[in-house]
Formats: sequence, structure tokens, C-alpha cells
Amino acid sequence: MSSYALGIDLGGTFARAAVVDGGGGLVSAAKTALVDRSPAAVVEAIALAAEEASGLAQDATLEACGVGVAGQLQGDEGFISLAPNLGWRDVPFGALLTARLGRPVKVVNDLAAAAWGELVAGAGKGFSDLFVVYVGSGVGSAIIARGQPLRGARGVAGEFGHIKVQPANGRPCGCGQQGCLEAYVGGVNLLAQMRDLHQRGQAGALLALTRNDPAAFTPAVLERAASSGDPGAQGIYEPAVDYLSVAIANQITLLNPARLILGGGVLMNCPGMRERIREGIQHHSTQVSLKGFTVAEAALGDDSGIIGAAMLAI
Amino acid sequence: MSSYALGIDLGGTFARAAVVDGGGGLVSAAKTALVDRSPAAVVEAIALAAEEASGLAQDATLEACGVGVAGQLQGDEGFISLAPNLGWRDVPFGALLTARLGRPVKVVNDLAAAAWGELVAGAGKGFSDLFVVYVGSGVGSAIIARGQPLRGARGVAGEFGHIKVQPANGRPCGCGQQGCLEAYVGGVNLLAQMRDLHQRGQAGALLALTRNDPAAFTPAVLERAASSGDPGAQGIYEPAVDYLSVAIANQITLLNPARLILGGGVLMNCPGMRERIREGIQHHSTQVSLKGFTVAEAALGDDSGIIGAAMLAI
Repeated sequence: MSSYALGIDLGGTFARAAVVDGGGGLVSAAKTALVDRSPAAVVEAIALAAEEASGLAQDATLEACGVGVAGQLQGDEGFISLAPNLGWRDVPFGALLTARLGRPVKVVNDLAAAAWGELVAGAGKGFSDLFVVYVGSGVGSAIIARGQPLRGARGVAGEFGHIKVQPANGRPCGCGQQGCLEAYVGGVNLLAQMRDLHQRGQAGALLALTRNDPAAFTPAVLERAASSGDPGAQGIYEPAVDYLSVAIANQITLLNPARLILGGGVLMNCPGMRERIREGIQHHSTQVSLKGFTVAEAALGDDSGIIGAAMLAI
Repeated sequence: MSSYALGIDLGGTFARAAVVDGGGGLVSAAKTALVDRSPAAVVEAIALAAEEASGLAQDATLEACGVGVAGQLQGDEGFISLAPNLGWRDVPFGALLTARLGRPVKVVNDLAAAAWGELVAGAGKGFSDLFVVYVGSGVGSAIIARGQPLRGARGVAGEFGHIKVQPANGRPCGCGQQGCLEAYVGGVNLLAQMRDLHQRGQAGALLALTRNDPAAFTPAVLERAASSGDPGAQGIYEPAVDYLSVAIANQITLLNPARLILGGGVLMNCPGMRERIREGIQHHSTQVSLKGFTVAEAALGDDSGIIGAAMLAI
């Protein structure tokens, strides 16, 4: 009999649950919208999605349950110190969910889960040393070393979005510090800079690409405007791409992964950004770290996190 | 019966060999100067030191042999792609030394060896997740994750000296690239910048501290002149310390080690630099990565590399 696990992906808007087989394949899945984001209501919504997914996979005996959460975790018990999308601070999420589901759950960072999913069943299959960078609303990363996720002493390794790229007088970041990589290149911050440009009356190129609708601004629109030579768009795009590509190149030098995997909404929708990252690595990483090194795009899309959470729990 | 291993530390001037017991204690040691730095002569010098150290430790049956080398390694066979201090490029050192000693040898980067020595028998004892930074003539680091050295896909992880801190128009580095951390803060580069200052006639404060002898310039002299407010010295010291402390703080954020260990001649002789690194971490690292985090100085001095090389080989 094959082994199965329950994987859960807790975002800011939806909770998704799926039964995953031992090879990382999805057997069944369910999704529920988070109307009320209080911890109790979110735990209840997850439980309903989990029951639905389990019910659809009748024959599967679930061996374990893993949850990926977009937030900063502390310790091994699923204590969430900060989850901005949920408005949570210091929530004993793992304990609450364990009590509601009546089974142990393993709570991990959503990007660590996505990276693990990509390792087991996606773009990292067959590699032992990986660096995975996700740029979506926020920026995060995960490191796989010797086939194991590098979690750090307190389980909070991989916070790539909060390395400082502009230590003096940098842009304020959602984390409360300033000059973080995420403050320049995270999707939320790219959009905020585009709106600022619009308010200063300098977003002509962006408006021309969106039929004069600032609500249609996206990072992909920014990339198109910047590559057409618009100075306003370049003023946002160029520092973002430069900071990101040097920061990634430096981690290739330091970690010497066999492969870099790029994922997340911003990177998947901005081919020019991915190309600049490849160029930056060639230019800035040590030559010796690039022997046999490859870059790949995330292959599992939105499923990587749910698959990875399940596989990490097994 | 206790287990013993042979540890070798290959620098640019001396080769040292020692018999190390299973707990990381030195049983015997021998040292030989490298007159001729050709690979064949160096291998011969190492063999003589190894025989002397083994002879002094009569009862010890050597189970393994490890060598730490200040150079860039490639693969698992001790192939040295670059060792500037020895003037080597693409030398199959592991194969040569194995043939001469008649036993398998494990070749590792000297800083990886030093970090491992500190972990097993020094400032890292009892910790599973460490980041070790050495600033001496050059700059290097080693990462211990889950109690294992993070070596990377090709064994060249930890090249902290060659991350780019000034990607555009940075100082040229000995590695052939520019803007590397080592180009600003490595001892060789600090001295070069002090000599440049002297040639421009702006080294008054440095000369006052060295009885007008430029040959007595050291990083410690630079630190004293900078802290006395001398603009010339500050122009070298401040960027170096800022780059170093932000780069270290960023790795604390990303790797979440339980402890940072600082070692190497420059850091050991510049207490102000160590203090600034501590301040930089408090200011720039994520708060969540600093829970329970400590900073320590390397405790084994010059012996860390030889002990670590032996212990890595066991």
C-alpha cells in the first residue's frame, strides 16, 4: 500500500488542502476562502478543506499532515511570530490546528514548503543542493543542502526578502526595518512604487500600457515600460533587478548550489527579470561556483507548496 | 583504544602536521617551511612533517588523514583550482598527496577546516548551526547546518570573501573580479589601501602611530587611526566595516545560525571591528533570527584548521 499525507497551503485569501501520494502526486484537493481571518476561524476553514480533500481520497490512509504558511515561524511547534497577510502576530497556530484536527501537524514556511515540493517532484528532482527564490507579493527563499532543507537554529532560515540591500536610508519594509530586498522587488512594493509614480504624474508609459487604468498596473507592465526606455519605470525596475540579481549571485557564491530555481508571481510574469538574474549570476558569482550550475523555473506552479508541506510531514 | 587522525594545515609559508585524538586534542605536531612551492616539493614537505608528527605519537594508529588548504577546491578528490598563496592553479593535489603518503587523504578548504575544528573542539562546541567568518589576509567563511559542514554541490561553498558588496565600479580583487568583500576588508587589501594613502601623502595619522614606518602599518593601526577621527583612515576603515557587518548580518538573516564565530588575524586584532559587527547584526538582521543567537571569538587560534582537517577526515 502506498503512503499518503495531507498537505495544506495557508495563504492570505484561501486555504487549500490536498491528499498527496508518496511520490508527490496530488490525489485530491479542496479550497476554501478565508472570510474571517481570526486564528479560530482560519483553523476551522482549514479543517473543513482537509475533511473534503480526505473524503475525496477514500482509500488513502493519511500518515502525516504538513502546513505551509506565509509567515515567520519560531521553534518546531508551529508558533507563528508574524504573518502579515493574515494579520497575525504570536499565534500558536500549530497547537490550535493539532487540537482541531486531532493529529500532529508540521507547520513550515510556505516558501520552504514550495522549495521542498520543487525538490521532490518538480524542478529540483534529482538535486541535493538547491537555492530556491520566490518573488511574489513578498520575497522568500529556501536552501536545500545535502538533500535536506536548511532551517536554521530556530527554523527561520531563508528570509531572503529581509536581507539589507540599501542599509543606509533604504525604503521602509513591511517588516518594520528598512532597506530590505523585499522593499524594492516584492510585488506589493513594486505596485506601491508604481502608484507613487502615478501620483507624481510621471506614469505616462505605465498608463499607456493599461488604457489609463492604474488598477491594472502589474510588475509585468512595469517591465514592459522599463524595457521601452521610460525613465520613470526604469527608476523603479532597475534598482529592483540590480539588487535582486546581485543578492542571488552572492548566494550562489556562498552556497554553491547545483541549481537555482526561480518562482513566484513576479518572476514567472517577468521574463526580462529572470534573464537579468541569469546575467547577474554569470557576472557576479565566482566562476568556480558556476561549474555545472543551472537555473530553472519552478515547475509545479501553485501546487509546489501543498506538495512540499505534505512531503515534509512524512 | 582511542581513535586518532592526522591533520595537516597547508598555508602559503608553512605546512603543519599533527596527530589529533578523537576529541579534537593535539597529541603531537610538526611544522616545516615551504622553500619550494612547486606541488611536488610541497607534497614532499608535507610528507616529512606528517612522518615527524606520527613518529612523536608512537602509540597512535592513524585512522584517517585530512588536509586544509587556503584555496578553491573542486570536487571531492582534492583538486585545487586556485591557491593564490601557493601560486597554484589546477593542481590535482589530493591525488599527489594520496600517492606520496600511501593512504587516502581528504582535502578541504582551510576555513571549512577551521570552522569544523571550532565546532568540534572550540567556540562552536555543542552547536549544530554555525556561521564562521575569518578575516585574515583574505576573507572566508564556513557554514555548519544540522551539525554538518555545508560544502555545496562542488565543494566550494563558503566563499564569503567573493560576494559582491560594490557591484558597480568596485575595487579590483585578487580573484580577477571586482567589488568583492575581500577587496575592501581582507588584510592584504587593507594594507594596500593604507600604502596608497601614504603615497598620496595623507597617511599622517598612520605614520604618527608607527614612528613614521609604513612597513609597520597593520589593520590594528588603521583601526586606531580611524577611531581617533582621522579622515584618511576612516575613508578605508568605514566602508570596510560597513560592508562586512551588513554582509554578515544578511547571512544571519538567511542562515539563522545559533552562533556566529569570528576569527582570523584582522578580526582578532581589531576589537572595534568585532564590536561594529555585533552592532550591525543587531541593527540589520531580522529580529526573529536573533532569538537565542550569540557571537563568539574563535577559541583555538592557529590550531583550529589542523584539528578540523583531522576531524573532518575521520
